[in-house]
Amino acid sequence: MNSQMVLRGLGALLICEAIALIPSVIVSGIYEDGAMMSFIYTIILLIIIGIPLARLKPKTNSIYARDGFAIVAAGWIVISLFGAFPYYLSGAIPSFADSFFEAVSGFTTTGASILENIEVLPPSIIFWRSLTNWLGGMGVLVLTLAILPSVGAGTLQIMKAEVPGPNPGKIVPKISSSVRILYKIYLALTIIEIILLLASGMPFYDSLIHAFGTTGTGGVSSKNFNIAAYDNVTAEIIITVFMILCGVNFTLYYQTIKGNIKALLKDEEFRFYIGIVAVSIILISINLYGNVYGSIGESVRHSSFQVASIITTTGYTSTNFDTWPLFSKMILFVLMFIGGSSGSTVGAIKSIRILLLLKATRLEMKSIIHPKAVFSIRLGNKTIDEKTLSEVKNFFFAYILIFTLTVIIISLDGFDLATTLSAAAASIGNIGVGFGQIGPLGNYSQFSGLSKAVLSICMLMGRLEIYPILVLTMPSLWEK
Amino acid sequence: MNSQMVLRGLGALLICEAIALIPSVIVSGIYEDGAMMSFIYTIILLIIIGIPLARLKPKTNSIYARDGFAIVAAGWIVISLFGAFPYYLSGAIPSFADSFFEAVSGFTTTGASILENIEVLPPSIIFWRSLTNWLGGMGVLVLTLAILPSVGAGTLQIMKAEVPGPNPGKIVPKISSSVRILYKIYLALTIIEIILLLASGMPFYDSLIHAFGTTGTGGVSSKNFNIAAYDNVTAEIIITVFMILCGVNFTLYYQTIKGNIKALLKDEEFRFYIGIVAVSIILISINLYGNVYGSIGESVRHSSFQVASIITTTGYTSTNFDTWPLFSKMILFVLMFIGGSSGSTVGAIKSIRILLLLKATRLEMKSIIHPKAVFSIRLGNKTIDEKTLSEVKNFFFAYILIFTLTVIIISLDGFDLATTLSAAAASIGNIGVGFGQIGPLGNYSQFSGLSKAVLSICMLMGRLEIYPILVLTMPSLWEK
Repeated sequence: MNSQMVLRGLGALLICEAIALIPSVIVSGIYEDGAMMSFIYTIILLIIIGIPLARLKPKTNSIYARDGFAIVAAGWIVISLFGAFPYYLSGAIPSFADSFFEAVSGFTTTGASILENIEVLPPSIIFWRSLTNWLGGMGVLVLTLAILPSVGAGTLQIMKAEVPGPNPGKIVPKISSSVRILYKIYLALTIIEIILLLASGMPFYDSLIHAFGTTGTGGVSSKNFNIAAYDNVTAEIIITVFMILCGVNFTLYYQTIKGNIKALLKDEEFRFYIGIVAVSIILISINLYGNVYGSIGESVRHSSFQVASIITTTGYTSTNFDTWPLFSKMILFVLMFIGGSSGSTVGAIKSIRILLLLKATRLEMKSIIHPKAVFSIRLGNKTIDEKTLSEVKNFFFAYILIFTLTVIIISLDGFDLATTLSAAAASIGNIGVGFGQIGPLGNYSQFSGLSKAVLSICMLMGRLEIYPILVLTMPSLWEK
Repeated sequence: MNSQMVLRGLGALLICEAIALIPSVIVSGIYEDGAMMSFIYTIILLIIIGIPLARLKPKTNSIYARDGFAIVAAGWIVISLFGAFPYYLSGAIPSFADSFFEAVSGFTTTGASILENIEVLPPSIIFWRSLTNWLGGMGVLVLTLAILPSVGAGTLQIMKAEVPGPNPGKIVPKISSSVRILYKIYLALTIIEIILLLASGMPFYDSLIHAFGTTGTGGVSSKNFNIAAYDNVTAEIIITVFMILCGVNFTLYYQTIKGNIKALLKDEEFRFYIGIVAVSIILISINLYGNVYGSIGESVRHSSFQVASIITTTGYTSTNFDTWPLFSKMILFVLMFIGGSSGSTVGAIKSIRILLLLKATRLEMKSIIHPKAVFSIRLGNKTIDEKTLSEVKNFFFAYILIFTLTVIIISLDGFDLATTLSAAAASIGNIGVGFGQIGPLGNYSQFSGLSKAVLSICMLMGRLEIYPILVLTMPSLWEK
């Protein structure tokens, strides 16, 4: 491993985190909420550690895949550690372990919380939680490299490890330009949503918080009952639409802006993703109508909000869906595993992988009937090579494996089955909300220290698509 | 498809089913339980339909993989249909749909029952249920071909489709001899268990029923509380040991008999399977001791019985494990998916596939660190080729997919989560017993007709490892 390069990358990352903390200082100043010094101390600490690291002069600039993975895995752990300081120093969260859980949950866009009452927190602390959602959505290291391209040999390796999906696409030949384009689209979506939420009657501060939470598909809110607290149908519709939009591969937006609208409509993953959303909304609406809500309108309103929220792994709630019939809840539970599109800000397995696995199942059946014929899997007009397919299948198993191990460990806490299964699924899928104790009215505060630690690792694994964290345990990673 | 050959195979199968019904006629005669005519009518029906089919003279004897799959899939559906007749005709089960569910459950070695009170049934009906477990364990078509080898071109194709595991091994070069060797080992295990159960004090009739239920890993019993009804520790130990033995690849026994004991001890799947059994017993015993049972002995007694019963997909119960702590139950739930070894009578995914998937995960991590190196997966001293690996990975996804779809459909019945999830897992895994309504004290009677139908298909899919049933839906299977 080129440890000098890894450390230099981490240094740049810490400096960026220091910069990212500045808006919270301003918010704290405006609201005079008393949390300002917790941010300033953290910024000072980050600069003291970050600058010497960023100034390291590695003997060689060459960076390999494993270095990229090491930077990403170490980077996410480190920013979460420092990102926990404001929670701890301000006294908002008395335990540092809980503060770390909260920071991991924020950066990984999970939005799971150990906080029992969000509304008593200083506004700047909520702002920081929400901002970590936004920063983590598109990738903190990718952002670092967009801001400080001088650090970055190996941008492609880092993108591979950090951007969700099996095959992060370069939009334009130069990868640092691609990254900047992605961030511009991301920023544009965020600003449009802020404006629309303001127009819907939501206060400015709340609009910021929820726009960050939506576009990062993180689901952090300033309200205990988050979106349900407003009972504002317009805002719900805006958030539903933006959640769905943020579950689309961002490169398709670039192509649409460039005039190639067909690219979006013809994209197989997009059609599959929209198809799942539509079918789920219809099935749940039918199930809810008459059973839970008296009108079709209410049924569609809440089913579309929750489907959008869960498949994009955002985790906002417009109602307490934990009281819905089992059929509706099981569909939501399955959506927790599917997730939105690759190249977006969502977590979970991602639609493209499920689509490829379904195609592989069909292929297997065809080759049973025609054992001598040679078939291949196509996505759009591209043939998917064996290596990519094999990686997708391995990822599926690894995902289920980590989910299973997590379930077994946290089952030691002795909660009910719905809480246990959904906590594991909502953590590795970066959703946050689940059923039972962690349902729309609940939170993660009652889990044991062991469970919180395991769920934190789970969130990181989910966000980084498992392997970067997993390879940290391989001794050969650490060889020179 | 060579439909003449398929029909001839089905004819032979029906004749074998008629023969297999004779012992039940005898049992009915001994107990004078009034069910004799239901068996005799079924036998007459089977002969009237079976003999003309078995006498068909196909234009060509050539049989392809798809024909093998078609014979197996159609064969299992047909024997279940006729196997349901005694239940229905004797009046033991008033609904034919329920009788079909019970027959599928028997042949697929699931042991799930819609019967609320087994003990009021005629002894010959229970005997037939138990015998279907035994017949289904090693494969009904393989048995047919062992008895009537003249029918069978394409024995290998049928073995591929019917014998559990990714790679059914030929023990000796001639496949019909291999089949006969497997059946001799199976018969020997059954006879030894009958003798031992008799020695433990179990009545002769009960010993037969439970030996069939054990060696077929089906779990059919003559008692409502099955093994728990006897409170006979010796019988429990015998059954525990035989369940574990019947989860071992039978070809290893052949090699052991031939003097190659090392083959057993060095077999990676065997070691993995025994390892999972040991670790599960230890973890559950620790969890139970103090929480549920006061003594270590009781904890080990019940944990080893249930671990053996669930991993081998037998489904016998020595106690109501549904009251155990969640941790123990979650381990059992995971074992429902793993299953015992390939080439045995167990259901579920099978240990060898899980082992290969774990090795694939490790390989993926290694190739991330060393992207240019070429690694391969070895099992014992054999390198596993890419095609087998790909099939194993596809199978894992297909299994989870069918499980998920089943869960969604049966969740419409609105039972609790534990019942719903475990009913799907216990059906596709051919276990039978689960948690909640289908726990040790429950049964499947309360499910809707739709759910029972879906669970029946699920049991067949699980027993035949999914594809034979799935390819029935492909139009190209039916082309000439």
